[in-house]
Amino acid sequence: MDLNRRQILCGLGGIACGAACAGLINPKEDAHAASEKMQRFQQAGGDFGWKPHKLDVEAVQKVAYEAYHNKGYACGYGVFYSIVGSLAEQYGAPYNQFPFSMLEVFKGGISDWGTICGCLGGAASAYALFWGRKERDAMVDELFHWYSTTNLPIYNPADAKVSLDKTKPTIAESQLCHISVSRWCAANGIGEKSKERSERCARLTADTAGRACEIFNAKIEKGKDWKGTYVAPESVKKCADECHKKPGSGSDWAKGHMDCKPCHDGGKALQNHYVNHP
Amino acid sequence: MDLNRRQILCGLGGIACGAACAGLINPKEDAHAASEKMQRFQQAGGDFGWKPHKLDVEAVQKVAYEAYHNKGYACGYGVFYSIVGSLAEQYGAPYNQFPFSMLEVFKGGISDWGTICGCLGGAASAYALFWGRKERDAMVDELFHWYSTTNLPIYNPADAKVSLDKTKPTIAESQLCHISVSRWCAANGIGEKSKERSERCARLTADTAGRACEIFNAKIEKGKDWKGTYVAPESVKKCADECHKKPGSGSDWAKGHMDCKPCHDGGKALQNHYVNHP
Repeated sequence: MDLNRRQILCGLGGIACGAACAGLINPKEDAHAASEKMQRFQQAGGDFGWKPHKLDVEAVQKVAYEAYHNKGYACGYGVFYSIVGSLAEQYGAPYNQFPFSMLEVFKGGISDWGTICGCLGGAASAYALFWGRKERDAMVDELFHWYSTTNLPIYNPADAKVSLDKTKPTIAESQLCHISVSRWCAANGIGEKSKERSERCARLTADTAGRACEIFNAKIEKGKDWKGTYVAPESVKKCADECHKKPGSGSDWAKGHMDCKPCHDGGKALQNHYVNHP
Repeated sequence: MDLNRRQILCGLGGIACGAACAGLINPKEDAHAASEKMQRFQQAGGDFGWKPHKLDVEAVQKVAYEAYHNKGYACGYGVFYSIVGSLAEQYGAPYNQFPFSMLEVFKGGISDWGTICGCLGGAASAYALFWGRKERDAMVDELFHWYSTTNLPIYNPADAKVSLDKTKPTIAESQLCHISVSRWCAANGIGEKSKERSERCARLTADTAGRACEIFNAKIEKGKDWKGTYVAPESVKKCADECHKKPGSGSDWAKGHMDCKPCHDGGKALQNHYVNHP
């Protein structure tokens, strides 16, 4: 199949154009053609209807690092593009129909608010094209736990845009952009608006894309039999199981799997900074 | 245009099928047809190439509440579908080609990790289909600040699935799912796994969709002239401007716009809960 847009628009007749259109439409779809108004909650290709294909981890890391720098779209776009964009480059439709720039949304923890690390948001979103929550959640657990417990960045390309040789990696202990970035900046005495901080995030984009791709490939390989290694940290298990997620405890109000410690251990950063600032 | 999939697949000949295919392809596109492998960083329809159309705010709220409950896809899907799905229902392509179930990813603050509130992630992602960061960031600022400073939920439909008449709304003071949900649960003595908590989140989905739609409509109306009312809270301005975002201060390491207070004011929840638990 090698029809270009002009050939399609000019119309080659039934067989050729039918085949071209078929490339757009997943066999699962039974709802509507692209030109029709959509019925509520129907979806072209079916829910989670796209097929995943294994990708080369090192190639994905390289694409992620490059994608981070593409028009400043940054971390979420970088990781997402490294997986879904690589599929689009290798397989065409339906992957090449995705509006990729949407993933810029995760830059700076969503429009610089410092919430979810964009690398993680981009990876989880990529997984969600292929698997519903019952299969996807364990993949996200695996990736999110790895991210928060690993000294990052590791990636150090020969053609790095900025040297980080005088910096040290840090363990984020969190999935939040604010904590992840601020911890690295504080440990290295480097400003959050600096080119070094941006380079650090570009490398985390490559690192996260690589780990996300390993999980992606393993899931494709083993399907429903895939099991991650994630176990909730002691703090989470203790706080959750004994009380804050135990129905009937009277204080089972804690939503989330983030490690409790960074915000509930009485650390220096958590003390009152509005009176007698340390 | 009322061709169904079967007609397209059977091939109606040049003119009809050419027209059907044209509905898929945005005039901005000059890169590739859907059936082709994608060139790196190219995008069907062009970056941020989709056209926004104004939507009815009350109708969007109603769709969001319904979408929250669709197959348990929840908050992020709910808000995103209420905008982009409504466009697909009213205008067809390209909106109806989006793989909507991907937005389930935000459920529970991304796979139950409690990070970004999914309502906010869904809204910001919808904006990012239409506007790049230079125009979009102010829209996100407006929505995120509203969310964290408003007593929610407000939405109370006549056909509510669960009554919340015996509960009180709360101000999240945060954009994070963990804090937003836990604050409401604690204030009301209600478990985070309860049907009341889920109903609370369904109503926040409608509330956030409504406010997101107001901002969306205003942006369409005024274009580059649109200005939000967001001003950073005193705590953020003081901490950031005087030090933690001031280049050269020696401690300019704080990424993000989230209100500093909930995690840096020495509150009871922030004290050491691993020794002498209160």
